Amino acid sequence: MQKNFQGYAVTGTHRCLNLVWLIRPKNIPDASRWSDFKVIEYPSKKWEETDVEIAITHCGLESVCGSDIHTLTSGWGSFETPLVVGHEIAGTAVRVGSKVKSGIKVGDRVGVGAQIGSCYTCKYCKNDNENYCPKSIETYNSEYPDGVRTMGGYSTGIIAHEQYVFPIPDGITSAEACSMMCGGLTVYSPLRRNCAGPGKKVGIVGIGGLGHYAILFAKGLGAEVYAFTHSHSKDGDIEKMGADHVVYTEEKGFQEKYAMSLDLIVSTRDVSENFPVAEYLSMLDVHGKFITVGLPDETLPGASAGVFASNGCFFGGSKLGSKKEAVEMLNLAAEKGIKPWIEELPMKEVKKAVEGVKGGKVRYRYVLKQDIAV
Amino acid sequence: MQKNFQGYAVTGTHRCLNLVWLIRPKNIPDASRWSDFKVIEYPSKKWEETDVEIAITHCGLESVCGSDIHTLTSGWGSFETPLVVGHEIAGTAVRVGSKVKSGIKVGDRVGVGAQIGSCYTCKYCKNDNENYCPKSIETYNSEYPDGVRTMGGYSTGIIAHEQYVFPIPDGITSAEACSMMCGGLTVYSPLRRNCAGPGKKVGIVGIGGLGHYAILFAKGLGAEVYAFTHSHSKDGDIEKMGADHVVYTEEKGFQEKYAMSLDLIVSTRDVSENFPVAEYLSMLDVHGKFITVGLPDETLPGASAGVFASNGCFFGGSKLGSKKEAVEMLNLAAEKGIKPWIEELPMKEVKKAVEGVKGGKVRYRYVLKQDIAV
Repeated sequence: MQKNFQGYAVTGTHRCLNLVWLIRPKNIPDASRWSDFKVIEYPSKKWEETDVEIAITHCGLESVCGSDIHTLTSGWGSFETPLVVGHEIAGTAVRVGSKVKSGIKVGDRVGVGAQIGSCYTCKYCKNDNENYCPKSIETYNSEYPDGVRTMGGYSTGIIAHEQYVFPIPDGITSAEACSMMCGGLTVYSPLRRNCAGPGKKVGIVGIGGLGHYAILFAKGLGAEVYAFTHSHSKDGDIEKMGADHVVYTEEKGFQEKYAMSLDLIVSTRDVSENFPVAEYLSMLDVHGKFITVGLPDETLPGASAGVFASNGCFFGGSKLGSKKEAVEMLNLAAEKGIKPWIEELPMKEVKKAVEGVKGGKVRYRYVLKQDIAV
Repeated sequence: MQKNFQGYAVTGTHRCLNLVWLIRPKNIPDASRWSDFKVIEYPSKKWEETDVEIAITHCGLESVCGSDIHTLTSGWGSFETPLVVGHEIAGTAVRVGSKVKSGIKVGDRVGVGAQIGSCYTCKYCKNDNENYCPKSIETYNSEYPDGVRTMGGYSTGIIAHEQYVFPIPDGITSAEACSMMCGGLTVYSPLRRNCAGPGKKVGIVGIGGLGHYAILFAKGLGAEVYAFTHSHSKDGDIEKMGADHVVYTEEKGFQEKYAMSLDLIVSTRDVSENFPVAEYLSMLDVHGKFITVGLPDETLPGASAGVFASNGCFFGGSKLGSKKEAVEMLNLAAEKGIKPWIEELPMKEVKKAVEGVKGGKVRYRYVLKQDIAV
């Protein structure tokens, strides 16, 4: 009942003399070969009648704040090889289980993001917070309850529970849609849940792959957008994305002019060092929220309680988004003509792509086009 | 148009060779004499017709998380002596300005908290967020626009704008009411603004002067209360205050049983060292809030972004409360028979009181009874 797919996997391994590995030997990655990929064949999850099988046509590549890169370079901990990463998947439904209720049909264009399973029974799964289900299963480098490892979208196909399969509306291509499945949704959810919309002033910190989506969606939702960037290297681009104001954070005292003026700040920054947390918090209106969706490898810097008291502000986090939000986001993108800034590459150039992301060369997201003959 | 009051002031001074003081010499406190008080006479603010003059009968003494103590021991920065502290004031209105609109009459029992002025015109002053007005004036150790220094409530009287004068309802004594003016309001505001009430699970961290109020008011508002304390020294008391659950934070893994179960945590803890921030955040339900009202002298510890992402939680602050909330709180206390745990002392024993607070001896708040003959 499993099916074999083929995908670009990192395979470079070395053996570690750690006691745990001796007891249960595993292939773990050789850090120096993090960007070496080769095509492997691997088994899918066991088919269930609530599943959809997808022939993958495109897979986004998490950008500067990218999970793929954090994973490959072991910033988020070690992993077992071979591993197929990629969780911004778009493709065509080629098989639909008999118990699928959401109306997906064979031939529909659909996507999958960074989450591919959950318990389906807890309160979070029942109230559109399935992205916070404690039994959440990630699209790759995770395990189904029966022990089958999850493998990502740099691949020919994937089988997923219908809850994690999002329909792609007409009016948006699969290449455009795929990188919204994680990058887009990750910023859309905190914007939407914290009332980004007409009359609201929203700051976006860090204008990379996630940040460019945050500008596009905050504008799409009707907010006034303040883009915070550390340099002039993206001048022009930021305005074209639609930001109403650009603020350069390398200028000392950059925050003073905006004291207590923003309703919400969504930060995509993924570096803790020299993170001016107190400066950002001081720009929030009373009970305003600063939400980081960037996940630096290091601990975030603290701030004094007085900073939080002065405006009663909040510092928080956010994790992916719900299916309800994904569907809403894709429809908004189609209706408003929101186009991500993507560069398309054939999937065989994955090494170039991940190295380009790590080196900060991409503007603003790579999309890999599936090219393995099936 | 000013009036003289008499109050217990800290007066111990020394001269500092700091350049700033040389240019503009000031009396600054001698740290070793922080608890030496003597009665001084000082001028009030200039009378305005929007003001109320209060003959002070009682003044609360900020307890373990106490602002008075932080100020006196210079934890919150230096100050000029002589200084009369105290901002939990209750007394009797003895003069009411002709432009006072709130219905206060001569003879009414009224209170004043930690804020005694603001701009009265900004959006915060207009929308019941006057406690966050950027031009807020503190009840002591602050300055009116005309340069008159504010002096607190260890004193015979005070003149205050009616916005900062709260009526004390029948059914609650002035001794009981006074310590609600700051300590009570400081915890009531975040409880109320974050929906502490029936069906909600609310954690209270640190069961001192503020924490005991947080338990009383969270219960009064109808929430299920979890008290977090580091030791068994308050066993019995905490249950009598009404907490439904007591959790001992010195037990390793104390948080595990409560993962993602609390809607709100209000922390009165005022020490940063060994503050288990990540453990507290992990107990919050999706988008739950941890709000510190304790103001440690040091920077709060940071946490990893992953901790915030796992439940989309928030860490925030809060500052005092609005008049609207103060009136509501006092009425709730009167209606529900909420009684603070106070120990009354004559004001001349202020030294004993502040030293008792600093040494952690008070359970749970001191109230000083005015004893200067006028």
